[in-house]
Amino acid sequence: MKSHPQSIDPAVLELLPKASSDGVETVWDRYEAQQPQCGFGSLGVCCRHCVQGPCRIDPFGNGPKAGVCGAGADVIVARNLLRQVAAGAAAHVDHAYDVVEALELAAKGEINYAITDEAKLHRVAQGLEIEISGKTTAEVALAVVKAAYADLENHGKRPAKWLMSHAPQERVALWASLGILPRNPDREIREALHQTTMGMDGDPVNLVLATAKQGLVDGYSGLKLATDMQDILFGTPAPVVTEANLGVLKEDYVNLIVHGHVPLLSEKIVYWAAKLQEEARLAGAQGILVSGICCTGNEVLMRKGIPLVTNYLAQELAIVTGAVDAMVVDVQCIMPSLTQVASCYHTEIITTMPIVKLPGAAHIPFTLENADEAAQEIVRKAISSYTRRDPQKVHIPNYRRKIMAGFSVEAVVGALATVNPADPLKPLIDNIVNGNILGVVATVGCNNVKVTQDSLHVELVKELIKNNVLVVATGCSAHALAKAGFMNSEGTETYAGEGLKAVLGAIGQAAGLGAPLPPVLHMGSCVDNSRIGDLVTAIAKYLKVDSALLPVAASAPEPQHEKALSIGTWAVTMGLTTHLGVVPPVLGSKAVAELLTQGLTDVIGGKFYIETDAQKAAQGLIEDIRAKRKKLGLPG
Amino acid sequence: MKSHPQSIDPAVLELLPKASSDGVETVWDRYEAQQPQCGFGSLGVCCRHCVQGPCRIDPFGNGPKAGVCGAGADVIVARNLLRQVAAGAAAHVDHAYDVVEALELAAKGEINYAITDEAKLHRVAQGLEIEISGKTTAEVALAVVKAAYADLENHGKRPAKWLMSHAPQERVALWASLGILPRNPDREIREALHQTTMGMDGDPVNLVLATAKQGLVDGYSGLKLATDMQDILFGTPAPVVTEANLGVLKEDYVNLIVHGHVPLLSEKIVYWAAKLQEEARLAGAQGILVSGICCTGNEVLMRKGIPLVTNYLAQELAIVTGAVDAMVVDVQCIMPSLTQVASCYHTEIITTMPIVKLPGAAHIPFTLENADEAAQEIVRKAISSYTRRDPQKVHIPNYRRKIMAGFSVEAVVGALATVNPADPLKPLIDNIVNGNILGVVATVGCNNVKVTQDSLHVELVKELIKNNVLVVATGCSAHALAKAGFMNSEGTETYAGEGLKAVLGAIGQAAGLGAPLPPVLHMGSCVDNSRIGDLVTAIAKYLKVDSALLPVAASAPEPQHEKALSIGTWAVTMGLTTHLGVVPPVLGSKAVAELLTQGLTDVIGGKFYIETDAQKAAQGLIEDIRAKRKKLGLPG
Repeated sequence: MKSHPQSIDPAVLELLPKASSDGVETVWDRYEAQQPQCGFGSLGVCCRHCVQGPCRIDPFGNGPKAGVCGAGADVIVARNLLRQVAAGAAAHVDHAYDVVEALELAAKGEINYAITDEAKLHRVAQGLEIEISGKTTAEVALAVVKAAYADLENHGKRPAKWLMSHAPQERVALWASLGILPRNPDREIREALHQTTMGMDGDPVNLVLATAKQGLVDGYSGLKLATDMQDILFGTPAPVVTEANLGVLKEDYVNLIVHGHVPLLSEKIVYWAAKLQEEARLAGAQGILVSGICCTGNEVLMRKGIPLVTNYLAQELAIVTGAVDAMVVDVQCIMPSLTQVASCYHTEIITTMPIVKLPGAAHIPFTLENADEAAQEIVRKAISSYTRRDPQKVHIPNYRRKIMAGFSVEAVVGALATVNPADPLKPLIDNIVNGNILGVVATVGCNNVKVTQDSLHVELVKELIKNNVLVVATGCSAHALAKAGFMNSEGTETYAGEGLKAVLGAIGQAAGLGAPLPPVLHMGSCVDNSRIGDLVTAIAKYLKVDSALLPVAASAPEPQHEKALSIGTWAVTMGLTTHLGVVPPVLGSKAVAELLTQGLTDVIGGKFYIETDAQKAAQGLIEDIRAKRKKLGLPG
Repeated sequence: MKSHPQSIDPAVLELLPKASSDGVETVWDRYEAQQPQCGFGSLGVCCRHCVQGPCRIDPFGNGPKAGVCGAGADVIVARNLLRQVAAGAAAHVDHAYDVVEALELAAKGEINYAITDEAKLHRVAQGLEIEISGKTTAEVALAVVKAAYADLENHGKRPAKWLMSHAPQERVALWASLGILPRNPDREIREALHQTTMGMDGDPVNLVLATAKQGLVDGYSGLKLATDMQDILFGTPAPVVTEANLGVLKEDYVNLIVHGHVPLLSEKIVYWAAKLQEEARLAGAQGILVSGICCTGNEVLMRKGIPLVTNYLAQELAIVTGAVDAMVVDVQCIMPSLTQVASCYHTEIITTMPIVKLPGAAHIPFTLENADEAAQEIVRKAISSYTRRDPQKVHIPNYRRKIMAGFSVEAVVGALATVNPADPLKPLIDNIVNGNILGVVATVGCNNVKVTQDSLHVELVKELIKNNVLVVATGCSAHALAKAGFMNSEGTETYAGEGLKAVLGAIGQAAGLGAPLPPVLHMGSCVDNSRIGDLVTAIAKYLKVDSALLPVAASAPEPQHEKALSIGTWAVTMGLTTHLGVVPPVLGSKAVAELLTQGLTDVIGGKFYIETDAQKAAQGLIEDIRAKRKKLGLPG
C-alpha cells in the first residue's frame, strides 16, 4: 500500500532508492507498515487514561457510546486534545525556561555565554516596565530573568506577566471574560494534566476552553519567552543569505549536522566548528561544514547564516547521503530511528540532553556550565568520524536553493524603514489597505508522513502569493518553502502576484538589495512563531482594531507534533482562522469538531479550518481574508 | 459476555437488578459493551503522541516493529507509562497545593478556615527546621506555607524540600545516585510531559527512571504535602467508630453524599449539614445524613466519623437506592455517567470545581472565599431535593458494618504508647521481630471494573491477616475492607492469625478498648498513603535499616486510576515490593515489564509484582516478607 508520493523534494526522491539499496528503513517504510492505522485513535475516540480501558466509542453508533466511566465521544475527544495541547505547551515552556536559566547564569557571569543583544534586552525590559536607566547590562538582564521567574512563583490568580505585557489588550479582555487567562504556566500545565485524568472534567466545552488556555500558555510562556531570551543571548536576527537542501552538504568537508530545537547547544557548535577548522584540515578535510535540520537549524540559520540541510521528514535521508559525519541532537522531533539508520554508515549520532537518550548513540552530556567543552568534544567527534567515512557510500543530491532568511520583526521593520523611516509600518499597512497586499498568512509547523512531504506547504503558498497574499513562515514549513525556491528574489519574480511583486520590489530597492524581497519571509523556528504574533499585534495596534479583524490567517499545512497543535490553538485564541492540512484526532466528536471549526468563532474570533486539499485550503484562506477585508471596508 | 461476577458486596448485588429494572446503565454494563478491549492499548504498544499516528506495534512480531518515528515497543510502552504516572502525580500535586493555598489564606485570616491542629503544625514546622519559639500560630503556618511554595519557586537543581525533609536518608542517597531526585515538582511534571512528546526520549531505561522520579514527586510533593496541610487545617485523625456500606443511608433523612478527594469542601458540608438540621426537619425529614464515597469520604470519616457509603465502582448504585437527595463532587474518580443515572431519580448531582463540570449537573462554584455560602447552598439543595424524592423508588440494602477508623501514625503511636509510653514503637517492633507480626502490607488504591469489585482486596487481605500480616489500608481498598468486616474487633477474632490476634488484643486492652484493635487499620484517603510512608520511615529509622530491607510490602489489588500508578511507583522507589492485581499496560515490552518487575530491584530495592490471583498474590507477598525477614535474621 502506497497512498501518496513520499515527497516533492527532488533530493529526497533521489535518495530514497539509495536508502532502499543500502538496506535502510525510512519513515515512509514504517508508515506503510503501519497501514491501516487505527480508526478509533484517528478519530480521537480511544481513551487510555485509566487502567479500566482501553475504551473506544463506536463512531457509527452501533457499538459502545461511552467508556466504562461513562465518558462519551465528546469528552474523550476533548480530553485527549487537551492533554496533547498541554504536552505541546510543556515542550515550549520547558525550552523557554532553559533559556531563561542561561540568561540568568550568563548575567551572573557563571557560564560562558554573552548577552549579545543589549538593545533587545532593553526593549524586553521596557516592555516589562523595568527601569533600565543607571543599570548595567547584567542588572537589567537579571531583572528580566526575575520577571520571567515571577510567573513560575505566582501562586495566586494573577495572569502570567509575559502574557499581560505582550498580548493585545482587546484580546486580554476577551480571554479574561472567557476565564482562560493563564496564571503560572507550570500550574496550568499541571492542572491540565489533572483535569484529564479519570473522573475529572466531563464537559467538552469546559475542556475546549481549557485547551484554549493551554494555547495561551504556549504562546506567551513558551514561544514568546523563548524568542525574547534567545534574541537577548544570541542576537536578534537580521537578513542573511545562504542555501537550503541536502545539496548544501560538501563531500570534502566534515559535515556536522545540528538537529533539534534549542540554540544553546547549536550556537556553541557553530562557534567551535569555526575554531577547529584546522583540526579538520589535518584530518584530510577542507574544513568543517555545520548545517541544520528542524528548528535548531532555523535558529543558527537566522543568526549565523548556517545552511539548512532538510526538514523533519528527511532527517534520516541526510544520513543516507553517507556524507554526514556526525549529527548532534538536543530536543524534540528527533526520530528514534536515527541510530538504526546511522548504523548503516559511519555517522555518529550524538545525544546531549538528560531527557533525550537513544540506545546506540554517543551521549555527550551538555550543560550550560560545560557547553564549550561539550561542543569541542562533539566537533572533534565529527572530525574523527570523517576519517572513517566510506567514499563508496557517499552520494549528495545536487539540489540546493539560495535563500534569504533572518526576518525578525525588527528586520522587517528595518527594511520598511528604508521606505518610510518616520513611520516604518506605514508602507506595509498602506499596501494592505490599498490591496496590493491582500493579506498575510503565516505558514508554520511540521512535515507529516501522512501527506507528500512539503506538498501542502508549497502548493498552498504558491496559490497564496499568486493572489498577493504575503506569506511569513517558520519551522519545517520555512524549510519546505526555502527548498522550493520561495525565499529569494527569483521567487518573487516567478510566483508573486502583481500587487505583491510591486511592494516587495519597492522595499527591496529601498533597502538596497537591488532585487525584490522574497515572497515568503523566513521568520525563524517554531518558537519564533512569537515573531508572527508580535507582527500581528503591531499591525492590530497600528490600525486600532482587534487582531481577529485583520486580514491575517495561519496555516499548519502538515502538522505532526503536539507542539503544532498547541501553536495552532494559540493562533486561534489570537482570533486567526488557522488552517490544518492534516486532520487532528477530533472528528470522532461532532460537538468538539464543530466547536473547534465553527463554535469558537463566536466567542474568540478565530477557528480551526481543516482542509486536506492545498488548492481548496488556499481558496478558503483567501476567502477568509477577503471577508475580513470587507468587514474592515477595504477593497478586494 | 460476562467475564466475572460484578461484586462481592451484597449491597451491590442487591441493587444491580434494581438498576436494571429502573433502566439505569451502570459501569458493568458499559464494561460489557466495551468487550473486547483493544489488545494493543492493553499491552501499551499503541502511541498517539503525534498526529502521524496512531501507531501500533505487533506484539506477535509479524507486523510493525516500530511506529512511524521509529519508536519500538519498549519506547512506546515506557513513554505511555511515564505520561500516565506524571498525570497521577499532577493530580496529587494539584490537590496538595490547593490545600497549601487554603492554609496560607487561613493563616492570613482571609478565609473562614481554622488552623485546627497546632501540635501537628509545630511538628511539620520542626521537620522543616523552622524555628517556632516566639511565633504565633499564624506565623508558623505562614513559614510552613513559605517552605511549601519554596519548592515551586526553586529554579535550580536543589531537590524538593518536602522530600529532603521527610524521606529516609539512605533512600535519598540512593535516589541521588540514580539521578532521580526531583527538583521543583511542577518543573518535573512539565519536563515529563515534554520528555514524552514526539522525538524526545528513545531510551526505555531513561524513561523508566524518569517514571520513578515522578513517583517521588507524587510521594512527597503530592501525598505527603497534602496530608500535612490537611492535618494542620482539619486535625490529625484519631480513632473513630462508625459504619460502612450502602445501608448507612437512612430512608427518613436527607441523604447528602460527598464524593471526590479534597476535604476543603466536604469539611464545610459536614459543618453546615449539622447546622441546618432544623431546616431538614421542617422539610419533613428526621435530619440530614452526610455520608461519603471515595477519598473525600475517607477524609471526613477519619476526622469526623462520617459513615462511608461505598467505594468507586458502586458510586452509581448509591443513586440507584433512590434515597440520595444530592451527591456533591469535587475532583477525581467521579464517573461522568452520574448525571445520566441521576436523571432516573430525583438526585441532584452538584459539581463545584472549575475543572470538573458535568453537563446536566448543577454547578455551584466552590472557592476558599465563598466556602460557607457554597456549602449552605449545597446542603439546602439537598433538602429541597428530598421533598421531591419518590418513595416508590427507594430501596436501601440493609448492609452496613461497624468500623473503627482514624489510624493516623499519631493515633497508632498513641495506641502503642498505652503499652509502652516511654518507647511507643517498641511493642510493634518487638512483635515484628519475634514474629507475632510477620510483616506489614499496605493495601491501597481503587476498584477496577475488570475484576469483581472488592474481591482482590478482600481475598488478599483475608489470607494475609490469617498469616499474621498486619494490614494498613487507604482509599477504596479501605472502603472494601471496611465493608467486608475487617475494620472492627470481630474481624480480629474471626480472621487474624494467632500471633497477630495476640498483639492486637494486647494493644486494644491497654488502650482501654476492651477489645482487640481491628486487623486492618484504616489510615485514610489515597493522599494519606503518606501516613504509610511515614510509618515505614519510622520503623526503618528505629531499626536503623534501609526501608527496602523491612518485612513490609504494598499492594494495589484493583488499581484503575493514573494516581494508583504513581502511588505504586512511589512505593517501589521506597524499596517495597508493590503488588498490582490488574495488569497495567506494560506487557507489550518485555524489556520494560522485566525492568519494572525485576530489574529495578537491583538498583532500587523495590519492584512491581503483578499477579491477578489473590491467593497467589498473598502467598507471593508472604514469601517476599519471609525472605526479607530471613535477610534481617528474624524468625519465620
